[in-house]
Amino acid sequence: MSLVFPILKSVFSKDKDFLHAIRNIIGFTPRNLALYHLAFKHKASAEEAKNGAKKSNERLEYLGDAILGAVVADLLFKRFPYREEGFLTEMRSRIVSRDHLNKLAFKIGLNELIQTTTENIIKNKSLYGDAFEALIGAIYLDKGYNVAQRFIINRIINNHVDIDALESSESNFKSKLIEWAQKEKKSITFELVGEEPTGTGKLLRIKAVVNGVQMGEGMDYSKKKAEQIAAEQACKTLNI
Amino acid sequence: MSLVFPILKSVFSKDKDFLHAIRNIIGFTPRNLALYHLAFKHKASAEEAKNGAKKSNERLEYLGDAILGAVVADLLFKRFPYREEGFLTEMRSRIVSRDHLNKLAFKIGLNELIQTTTENIIKNKSLYGDAFEALIGAIYLDKGYNVAQRFIINRIINNHVDIDALESSESNFKSKLIEWAQKEKKSITFELVGEEPTGTGKLLRIKAVVNGVQMGEGMDYSKKKAEQIAAEQACKTLNI
Repeated sequence: MSLVFPILKSVFSKDKDFLHAIRNIIGFTPRNLALYHLAFKHKASAEEAKNGAKKSNERLEYLGDAILGAVVADLLFKRFPYREEGFLTEMRSRIVSRDHLNKLAFKIGLNELIQTTTENIIKNKSLYGDAFEALIGAIYLDKGYNVAQRFIINRIINNHVDIDALESSESNFKSKLIEWAQKEKKSITFELVGEEPTGTGKLLRIKAVVNGVQMGEGMDYSKKKAEQIAAEQACKTLNI
Repeated sequence: MSLVFPILKSVFSKDKDFLHAIRNIIGFTPRNLALYHLAFKHKASAEEAKNGAKKSNERLEYLGDAILGAVVADLLFKRFPYREEGFLTEMRSRIVSRDHLNKLAFKIGLNELIQTTTENIIKNKSLYGDAFEALIGAIYLDKGYNVAQRFIINRIINNHVDIDALESSESNFKSKLIEWAQKEKKSITFELVGEEPTGTGKLLRIKAVVNGVQMGEGMDYSKKKAEQIAAEQACKTLNI
C-alpha cells in the first residue's frame, strides 16, 4: 500500500494539473477529459492501437477545422452585413490561416500542453495550430456547437483577434507585383484601357502589363481597386 | 377597393405557395420567410440595392457552405470511428462536391424555386448546388445550428445520400500508384508482411514497396482494402 499510494498520487496530481490547465484555457469544466488529452497528442508521440491506427489528434483536428470554419463564417457574416461573399471568404481564410492559428495557440498557452518529441517541435511548424483545432474538435464533441462557438468567439476572437487590423492588412497585390518586378528586373505598368459609364458612375478597366505583355485586368469604379484586381490576377498568372 | 383586393390576394397566394413549398422541403415552419426568399435569388436576377451591392443568395451560400462542411465533418467523424483524417476529408469532399450538391438540389425540388434567367440556367451549372447551400445558410440563421444539422442529416443525407456507395467509389489509390510507377519507370510491389489473428478474423499487414523501399503500409481484414490503404499512404509520401 505504501508503495502503490505515491504512484497513484502522482498520476492523480498530473491529471489534476491537466484538468486545471484545460479549465483555465476553455473556461469551463470538461465532461470528458480523455477527449482533451487526445487533442494534445501529436502523431509523433501517439501509441499504435491494435488495428495499426495511431491514436493521435489528427481526427479531432479535422473536426475542429470544420467547426472553426463554420463559427468564423457566421461571425463575419453578421459583423459585415454589407460585404460580399468574396470579402468574407478572404477574411475567413486570414483568421483560420495556419500561421494565425499557430500564434493564437501560443497566446492561450497550448504549447505547454502538447505531447510530442523535441525534434518535432523544430520540424513541424503547424503543430500548435493543429492542436488548437483539435481542442475545438474536443470541445464540440464534449459540449456541442454552441459551447464551441462561445469558446471561439468569447475566449479567442474577442480577446486575441483584431478583425479590423486583419481587414486593413488586406493583401496589397500591387506592391507585391512591383516588388517582384524590381527584383526580377522587369518593367511593370498599369494602363487604363477603357471607361464604361453605368447608371451610378464610370467603370474603369485597367490592365497590368509586365514587359509589354498583359498579365491581368481589373474593373472597378475606383482606380485603386481596379489596379488591385489587375495586380492580383497578374500575381496569379505569374505564380508570385 | 375592388381594384386593390385582387392584387393583394395574388401576392398573398404567391407567398402562401412559397411558404407551402419551403415547409415541404425543410419540414418545419420558417420563422423569417425573407431569408428563404433570398436563398433562391440568383445574382443574375437580383435587384441592385442602394449601396450598389446586389441582394442575391451569394452571402447565404458562403455561410451555408461552412455549416454544411461542419455538419458533414461531424457525421463522418462519428460514422467512421476508426478511419483516419485523410479518408474523412476525402469522403466529405465527395459529399459536398458541387456536382453532388446539384443532384441533391434537384432531388428535393429546389430547381422549381430558383429565381433566375433562362440564359443562366443553361450557362451556370452550379446554380442548384449554390441555392442548396444558401438554403442551409437560411435555415441556420433562422433556427440555429441544431436545426440546420437535423435538416441536413434527417432530410438530406438519410434520404438521398448513399454513404456506403460513395465510400466504395473511393479513389483507387492502387491504380493511381501503379500508373505513376509506370510513367516514372519505377518498380512497385505489394507485399504481405504479416497476419494477425484477432477474435473475428485475420488482420493482414501489407506494404507498398517502390524501388525496394517501403513507402506505405496498410492493415485490414480484406487484402484489397489493406493494399488500398498502403497505396494511399505511398501516394501521400511520394506527393502523387
